[in-house]
Amino acid sequence: MKTVFSPRHAGHAGQTELVGGAIVPGFENPMRARHIRERIEAVALGPVLEPVAHDIATAKRVHDADYIDFLPRAWPMWRDAGHETPAMPFVWPVRGLRADVPPKTVEALLGYYSFDGGATFVEGSWEAIKSSFDTALTAAGLVEAGERAAFALCRPPGHHAGTATMGGYCYINNAAVAAQWFRDRGAGRVTILDIDYHHGNGTQEIFYVRADVQMVNLHGDPLTEYPHFLGHRDERGAGPGEGFNLNYPLPAGTGWEGWSAALDDALVQVAAYAPDILVVSLGVDTFENDPISAFRLTSGDYPQIGARIAGLGLPTLFVMEGGYAVAEIGVNAVGVLTGFEGA
Amino acid sequence: MKTVFSPRHAGHAGQTELVGGAIVPGFENPMRARHIRERIEAVALGPVLEPVAHDIATAKRVHDADYIDFLPRAWPMWRDAGHETPAMPFVWPVRGLRADVPPKTVEALLGYYSFDGGATFVEGSWEAIKSSFDTALTAAGLVEAGERAAFALCRPPGHHAGTATMGGYCYINNAAVAAQWFRDRGAGRVTILDIDYHHGNGTQEIFYVRADVQMVNLHGDPLTEYPHFLGHRDERGAGPGEGFNLNYPLPAGTGWEGWSAALDDALVQVAAYAPDILVVSLGVDTFENDPISAFRLTSGDYPQIGARIAGLGLPTLFVMEGGYAVAEIGVNAVGVLTGFEGA
Repeated sequence: MKTVFSPRHAGHAGQTELVGGAIVPGFENPMRARHIRERIEAVALGPVLEPVAHDIATAKRVHDADYIDFLPRAWPMWRDAGHETPAMPFVWPVRGLRADVPPKTVEALLGYYSFDGGATFVEGSWEAIKSSFDTALTAAGLVEAGERAAFALCRPPGHHAGTATMGGYCYINNAAVAAQWFRDRGAGRVTILDIDYHHGNGTQEIFYVRADVQMVNLHGDPLTEYPHFLGHRDERGAGPGEGFNLNYPLPAGTGWEGWSAALDDALVQVAAYAPDILVVSLGVDTFENDPISAFRLTSGDYPQIGARIAGLGLPTLFVMEGGYAVAEIGVNAVGVLTGFEGA
Repeated sequence: MKTVFSPRHAGHAGQTELVGGAIVPGFENPMRARHIRERIEAVALGPVLEPVAHDIATAKRVHDADYIDFLPRAWPMWRDAGHETPAMPFVWPVRGLRADVPPKTVEALLGYYSFDGGATFVEGSWEAIKSSFDTALTAAGLVEAGERAAFALCRPPGHHAGTATMGGYCYINNAAVAAQWFRDRGAGRVTILDIDYHHGNGTQEIFYVRADVQMVNLHGDPLTEYPHFLGHRDERGAGPGEGFNLNYPLPAGTGWEGWSAALDDALVQVAAYAPDILVVSLGVDTFENDPISAFRLTSGDYPQIGARIAGLGLPTLFVMEGGYAVAEIGVNAVGVLTGFEGA
């Protein structure tokens, strides 16, 4: 399997996040991508290609244009406002407040375009975000050109990013951009299977009223797990999208038996939808030692996940999402890919 | 003029706030109330009474019951979850996310019931919040009993607190609770005049569709000033409340000339509404040296504000809101009251 990877992710370093009443170094750090890349070489998964630059207009097919236009401006505006910390919002337009009038200051714009304090900016963030987007589209191009599968080693991840909101380490929704790109290139139906520990709230929001992109999520129950405010079982899509959004919220502590049973059910639903292309939002924070998650999958489980996904027999784009047990992230993520290849 | 004040505010100390990509000591601190109280004694404004305890059910007349029930639980839940910092949220249910399913963890509940990282909890917060609520209602009782005016020296403040959201140092909306209490005791119409630097978004939200409570706000333009997502001029109320919400957003740098012209226009609107009672949300962060605001009022201006408000000839409840130039807060806040008394 070919991998697409950009060294430009590495400038997105030293960013912070708000959690537990404190601002801490981001769990989403450059070592994550490095370990995955090293594992790819160690197991000789296949060639590692650099991404080709794509027009950012493609991101506006699934995100609001003003949101995408803000992303490269966030850090320069924050720096010019005199701040010395990573750029982080401080007030958010929840219910009872308006989200139809963009404010003028960077501090307020960061809140206007986000839902948490977990998608901060440093000097190199935009270059990394753009390279992650390019990585997803370049890998999508490999699948479109006939590869059975390809791996977009994206960093930062994307699945929490909604139509006009960043959060949870995510800025541009790489999986959603790729799914839309497949549609625009002629695919009739695309499925996004999100197996990250955290619900892919952004992807769900983007496609919620559409029947042409099926969204299937396995994740920690939002009643107790981040992002908390989306991902319940009763969210099944709306309007033309009714029935095309499927959530499998699972309790903290879920191990392979419970998780794989949900996966098997999800794969039946995907097969019934019969998409032309499968996009997998690949998070490995389902791992037992993940520092911010609570499932109990082991490293030996990941190849089985890949094998079961391969059983669908679909052209498949893997897009990297979360996973914060840095020492094991390479073994686990690449384990899914080798399991897919060997099936 | 009689003042109602509780020493129990003082336990709300050492709380923090999120601003500028950092967690800093709250600008809203116990010294604020202490300086105002000292100034009241220095100028012999009148007796200072302790509040009488009121049933918290009265707060549920303007706030959702589940929100009010959460407030005393927030700190114990946070402490029991093992945190050692003041309790602060980290993810918020903005557009695209759901606010109809309360999550189960304290970290998520804090976000569910807030719009920023500026209303944090410490051990003594709930006692202070409850005492501030009691203070507002006790002072309201003085006005209802025939006093021309009374001063509720509330801390923490309240005007940013909405139906089910805290933020901006505010938890229970003391002015809104008092206005509703006057209505429930027989007042036909009540006006809330909010002269704090920051828009009283919570109060506006609470009464937005009602004709029986007029809401008049003078404040920094939300395009550049906190809370950013409410307080525009085109927000005039809705449904039966159409025309009963008036916003005067003013640019940063506004001094007495511009500010007093807006006040005079606002007072004409209040007089035309002819309320039975006036509640003044009294913030003095309009002061030229306020550390987080940008108007240019001087200490000599505040008595004139009081005198002009007195010109309405209405029974008047002053409820303390913001003001963060701690050294001058007593002179400025009490200046409004002595100006009112002397008119």
